[in-house]
Amino acid sequence: MIVNFAERAHNHNWELDPVTRSLLDTDFYKLLMLQFIWKHYPKTRVQFTVYNRSAAPVDTFHIEELTQQLDHARSRRFRRSEVVWLAGNTFYGRQGIFEPAFLEWLERDFRLSDYEASVNDGRFHLSFDGLWTDTTMWELYSLSIINELRTRASLKRLSEFGLDILYAEAKTKLWNKIERLRGVPNLNVADFGTRRRHSFLWQEYVVEAMAANLGSGFIGTSNAFLAHKHDLEAIGTNAHEIPMVLAALARDNDEALKASQYHVLELWQQTYSGALRIMLPDTFGTTQFFENAPEWIADWTGQRIDSKDPYVAGDEYIAWLKVHGRDPREKLIIASDALDVDDILGLHAYFSGSLAAGIKVNDFRSAADFQDRRKWTPGRRIRFSAGWGTLLTNDFRGCDPSGDGGFDPISLISKVSSVEGRPAVKLSDNYAKALGPAKEIERYRSVFGMAGMSNTPVIT
Amino acid sequence: MIVNFAERAHNHNWELDPVTRSLLDTDFYKLLMLQFIWKHYPKTRVQFTVYNRSAAPVDTFHIEELTQQLDHARSRRFRRSEVVWLAGNTFYGRQGIFEPAFLEWLERDFRLSDYEASVNDGRFHLSFDGLWTDTTMWELYSLSIINELRTRASLKRLSEFGLDILYAEAKTKLWNKIERLRGVPNLNVADFGTRRRHSFLWQEYVVEAMAANLGSGFIGTSNAFLAHKHDLEAIGTNAHEIPMVLAALARDNDEALKASQYHVLELWQQTYSGALRIMLPDTFGTTQFFENAPEWIADWTGQRIDSKDPYVAGDEYIAWLKVHGRDPREKLIIASDALDVDDILGLHAYFSGSLAAGIKVNDFRSAADFQDRRKWTPGRRIRFSAGWGTLLTNDFRGCDPSGDGGFDPISLISKVSSVEGRPAVKLSDNYAKALGPAKEIERYRSVFGMAGMSNTPVIT
Repeated sequence: MIVNFAERAHNHNWELDPVTRSLLDTDFYKLLMLQFIWKHYPKTRVQFTVYNRSAAPVDTFHIEELTQQLDHARSRRFRRSEVVWLAGNTFYGRQGIFEPAFLEWLERDFRLSDYEASVNDGRFHLSFDGLWTDTTMWELYSLSIINELRTRASLKRLSEFGLDILYAEAKTKLWNKIERLRGVPNLNVADFGTRRRHSFLWQEYVVEAMAANLGSGFIGTSNAFLAHKHDLEAIGTNAHEIPMVLAALARDNDEALKASQYHVLELWQQTYSGALRIMLPDTFGTTQFFENAPEWIADWTGQRIDSKDPYVAGDEYIAWLKVHGRDPREKLIIASDALDVDDILGLHAYFSGSLAAGIKVNDFRSAADFQDRRKWTPGRRIRFSAGWGTLLTNDFRGCDPSGDGGFDPISLISKVSSVEGRPAVKLSDNYAKALGPAKEIERYRSVFGMAGMSNTPVIT
Repeated sequence: MIVNFAERAHNHNWELDPVTRSLLDTDFYKLLMLQFIWKHYPKTRVQFTVYNRSAAPVDTFHIEELTQQLDHARSRRFRRSEVVWLAGNTFYGRQGIFEPAFLEWLERDFRLSDYEASVNDGRFHLSFDGLWTDTTMWELYSLSIINELRTRASLKRLSEFGLDILYAEAKTKLWNKIERLRGVPNLNVADFGTRRRHSFLWQEYVVEAMAANLGSGFIGTSNAFLAHKHDLEAIGTNAHEIPMVLAALARDNDEALKASQYHVLELWQQTYSGALRIMLPDTFGTTQFFENAPEWIADWTGQRIDSKDPYVAGDEYIAWLKVHGRDPREKLIIASDALDVDDILGLHAYFSGSLAAGIKVNDFRSAADFQDRRKWTPGRRIRFSAGWGTLLTNDFRGCDPSGDGGFDPISLISKVSSVEGRPAVKLSDNYAKALGPAKEIERYRSVFGMAGMSNTPVIT
């Protein structure tokens, strides 16, 4: 075996192994939202803050490693070939979804804001202040950077053999998941795992494995860079930040605050000429959202279910559509909260009416729920897609031969924390997932109510 | 990433990927036996023949691939550095176990005999005729070549992703086995898996994994090349071929035939000055061997158990030693037939009296046998070593993502088939494992009897 001198020297020489290889290495919906913000809110100033919802610490690496990666991301620009792809590619069946003026701005003028990073009591604090257009994109870069630095810190503790076993176990685990999904009729699964991935290269491996083995059951990836690199469909439409910002801007007036969640959708459908109409109704509670929704919302293609039990949320939506005279079988729900194979198979069977060969209804974790609500009859009730995230791209639980849990995923989020100096709030369908200052959350709850929320504390 | 032009071109250019990288890539005992043969039987002519005891075919590759590999092996010579290692290294605590004259012959004059390879009814026939010194070494080279060609034929059917999953699954499986053995007190496990390995590189991976993770529980490898390359103990003493050849030479006289099995040991202890005294008593049946054994055989260090239930054979040996006034706790048994983790843990507990922390006696597959025969009391009854073969170096069962069994190990053997024109015979403790022409087997059975033999089907 002839030694590759150049490669060996390079492997010992390089200054930085960048996490953010490209500004396209983000969720595709960030680009759709960026165009929306650029168009409608170019002067709005917001702050994004990174929060750790897990008990596990993230501070297993040095802050200098973090700032080097953040600096590297800031130094990136969208490349010509990437902008050309955004301009010429077909997304959701439509070409030209991005305006030429936006793409020109993206290539020439787009810059990431500065960041504030500090260590306090041994924990990192990270936030981004500036124009919404300059801060919004930090969400994905900051999350994938922190997660990958945490992965690398854990990798450093393993021997070469330990590393080999770690990845062998993780690949075996991944393959067992893929095997369970193979051949399930009418399946629709997308990779939604960029933000909490183990690493970029692992996400790429996972996405290629899914693409090669699930056939039409794998419908694409939320990661724009991977979609570009591997000719896959880019998946995703919008996120909580838009209703959160619009609500913060309207907060002084109860009526305006309540109406802001629908104003988002009005502006969105106007921006995208009626395409990409997947709503995210849970920002301030899904039940109140539909109870008060204007009639035209029933024209939207579907919804993404991100914090409610998707069995419940799907049934609720089907019932609402029927009341509004729409055929639910034409509509779409996308579940995206903490899914794993059991959930995907169960929800797919429950809503799409397609059971995999040899799989029985009570094979699913949620069989009890399942049978309570639906006597099994084949046939679609509503279209169902799974947005498979953390447990697709970061399921290393039990794979570490040293067995210390350093690869277990953590619940890290990067959210709008203030808008023009006003606090931003998210309530969600899960009481425990609410974000914002306690007083402000209380005010929002008084306006939106708490109908249909889970995990609400029992008051005695 | 800069392309390594030389490597890429080389990967597409090479004529042959040799299985036999070195003549040391054989079981160490073949070298001990070769010296024995060179010393005592330099003019004896024998034939070795390859047999397939499995139902699975081996002919998944072209005969040209086989002959190319055999020709390559024939073109090899022992290298200077290898002979220097044999001369200077310590084996079983002794230096100079190989005579200078033998090593000189080995380096200068050793040649592999020619071979006869043909295809008949779509199955390979392979045999080696010549001086015993020139044919004996073919045993391991021919087996490892055929097994690896079979592996490569199966590898060719897999996609790059399929290959990756295959090895990920196999590594996970290996790691789970190692995990079960880690920390078991007083464990003695050696790699005996050269002949039926998946491939050379896989055996090397397995051996390095064991060495790195089992500490003193891993006592070495039977593979001389790996022992040399990785500074491990070379393990093994002798095999069936010596009693088979000596029996064939003595076959015309019943008494001489019966005595030949002890004559082997006499010659052996004389050759190695009383070292390396591990006997292999099952060639014509273990029970008759001990019943008729001369007193001095109780001085030997121990025995290898290769075809009898090792629980039964160990108990039988302990009882025999006691009758002959020897302390069994000073003696050694080495089990080497179709072992896997359960057998190793069970036998280790049964004979060495060391249970792993958290492991219960009835965790073992052989728990019924176990409890029938021994009321559990800690403490050693006899020293126990495991010679772990096929299921260490070739356990790919269930790992092939295409699921067709092409990687399942097969029971291929290469045995002495005739000696100076007379048929060679092995009876073994397993009726179904007898080798030789039916009439000759019958004659041997009339001389040696069938005491203590079982008729269990061969497990590959």
